[in-house]
Amino acid sequence: MIRNLIGVMGPGETASMTATTTAYALGQAIAQQGWGLLTGGRAVGVMEAASQGARSVDGIVIGILPGETMEQMSSAVDIPIVTGLGNGRNVINVLSSQVVVACGLGPGTLSEMALAVKLRKPLIGMHMAPEILQHLQALARSPVWPSQTVEEAITHIHEGLGDRP
Amino acid sequence: MIRNLIGVMGPGETASMTATTTAYALGQAIAQQGWGLLTGGRAVGVMEAASQGARSVDGIVIGILPGETMEQMSSAVDIPIVTGLGNGRNVINVLSSQVVVACGLGPGTLSEMALAVKLRKPLIGMHMAPEILQHLQALARSPVWPSQTVEEAITHIHEGLGDRP
Amino acid sequence: MIRNLIGVMGPGETASMTATTTAYALGQAIAQQGWGLLTGGRAVGVMEAASQGARSVDGIVIGILPGETMEQMSSAVDIPIVTGLGNGRNVINVLSSQVVVACGLGPGTLSEMALAVKLRKPLIGMHMAPEILQHLQALARSPVWPSQTVEEAITHIHEGLGDRP
Amino acid sequence: MIRNLIGVMGPGETASMTATTTAYALGQAIAQQGWGLLTGGRAVGVMEAASQGARSVDGIVIGILPGETMEQMSSAVDIPIVTGLGNGRNVINVLSSQVVVACGLGPGTLSEMALAVKLRKPLIGMHMAPEILQHLQALARSPVWPSQTVEEAITHIHEGLGDRP
Repeated sequence: MIRNLIGVMGPGETASMTATTTAYALGQAIAQQGWGLLTGGRAVGVMEAASQGARSVDGIVIGILPGETMEQMSSAVDIPIVTGLGNGRNVINVLSSQVVVACGLGPGTLSEMALAVKLRKPLIGMHMAPEILQHLQALARSPVWPSQTVEEAITHIHEGLGDRP
Repeated sequence: MIRNLIGVMGPGETASMTATTTAYALGQAIAQQGWGLLTGGRAVGVMEAASQGARSVDGIVIGILPGETMEQMSSAVDIPIVTGLGNGRNVINVLSSQVVVACGLGPGTLSEMALAVKLRKPLIGMHMAPEILQHLQALARSPVWPSQTVEEAITHIHEGLGDRP
Repeated sequence: MIRNLIGVMGPGETASMTATTTAYALGQAIAQQGWGLLTGGRAVGVMEAASQGARSVDGIVIGILPGETMEQMSSAVDIPIVTGLGNGRNVINVLSSQVVVACGLGPGTLSEMALAVKLRKPLIGMHMAPEILQHLQALARSPVWPSQTVEEAITHIHEGLGDRP
Repeated sequence: MIRNLIGVMGPGETASMTATTTAYALGQAIAQQGWGLLTGGRAVGVMEAASQGARSVDGIVIGILPGETMEQMSSAVDIPIVTGLGNGRNVINVLSSQVVVACGLGPGTLSEMALAVKLRKPLIGMHMAPEILQHLQALARSPVWPSQTVEEAITHIHEGLGDRP
């Protein structure tokens, strides 16, 4: 059965404690909804936290790795996709996610948010300046939602998937 | 838990009946070993047959799609990875597989076999002229095994994974 | 002799008249400095204008095309690089440019600006809200310069290339 | 003016002396015809020899580099395209060439030959077992020509470009 994949993206080495804590809870909540979690696959920052959260409740975790090997991969990844494309893999993260959640802001995350808007993927932003999301909304023809809590994010993911309330 | 992914590659529109029949049985056998099946994800030829085989025994199927959408995807794919890279995605097929099985020969398949040799992935060849595999063996520093039957292929996959007999 | 390549990026179909006019003058000025001009290669918006500007003074224009063919290519491109990678080619635009100039803002442009910051390429922004550049500056460890005029942009490109004044 | 780009591909570290010598003469002859030379850009084997040959007669050399920087680049490259895609860049080599010449055989070269057949690019093979080319011919709907000499290769390139004799 084709699984809905929800992408959670955010800073690696520079992730804040709050973004990391939210990412863990978000990974858990996504898995509890029965969705697959898709991340950049590395064992650091938001990717790692979201993956471990999903793993803690037996979710399925897909990691889209930038390197040519599984080095530096999160131990919570179930399905490692090894791309060897470096930052070229960011577009795969976005195209493979039904909904993209950006949790915290780094330059890689921002490139993925911009691609989400370009490729008309519903986008949720957490832990970042509201003006960033307003600028993206001005460029977007698909929804861009700020979310303050994991519960709010989950509601918006349902909306992005077109689920009936 | 990190799953072993076995890649099955082969012609799409031009696949022979024998290659297609083998691919179905191969997909089944791979799933029965508990491995994930990785294919190019399209609903045609060897990719489709292997995917449906794995699905028939409740295996997990990862499809690495060339396009920007899920159009033309096999209905047996569980985890669609949407790359938008066209033939550029072939390198992901190879890098993400622990062992590559080529079932039948087309130009796309041959490019993946050559990349498997380049990237030192164990490679199994079925339904193709023996000289093709001999030429690849001459270029390889990793194993290249011809296989006549699905059973033989499964034995070689275990070998490629480094499993003890 | 290895040529310095300067990337000019900006909206395609949605480019404003001002951004387009600036892009033409910028393409001219870049060519007059003896630098190669690198764009996304399509015959539309900022890419087209910058390319035609460089062409008008016999500059050299490299176009990094998203599709698998030269369809939709600007007639001013000298060296067409055909990637077939869709938006996956944005990372090549950035990596191949010594300095990146963003002229006008669209989602694709923003993804390239964010990658420039990620990959520590000097970045110049024209015709966009100052706060966008301020947000990028906050994320960057490489220079991010707003520019009001083509002359100012050329000065910053020299700076980005490490030229002595 | 859009330049015709001719791709010359072949082994790097493992290139034979004969393939390297031919590649130098081929690079010269391609440049003398006024065509641009496209290679994988690295300072080794067939890529290096062809690039230096073209440079020796003031040709233009485009290098499609696998890494994220210009490290290991041939000093004869005029236009460095930095992809960061590893072997994922092979598809760009093929798509950007009007005609592909494979000079000597390695696994990377074979992947590019197979992609040339897949993408229907005219293909010329030098310094390799004739059966390799026969197998590719059997899979191809575009021309695959063996060539013994540089002169013969140049004639076939003209043919591949559709030039009138």
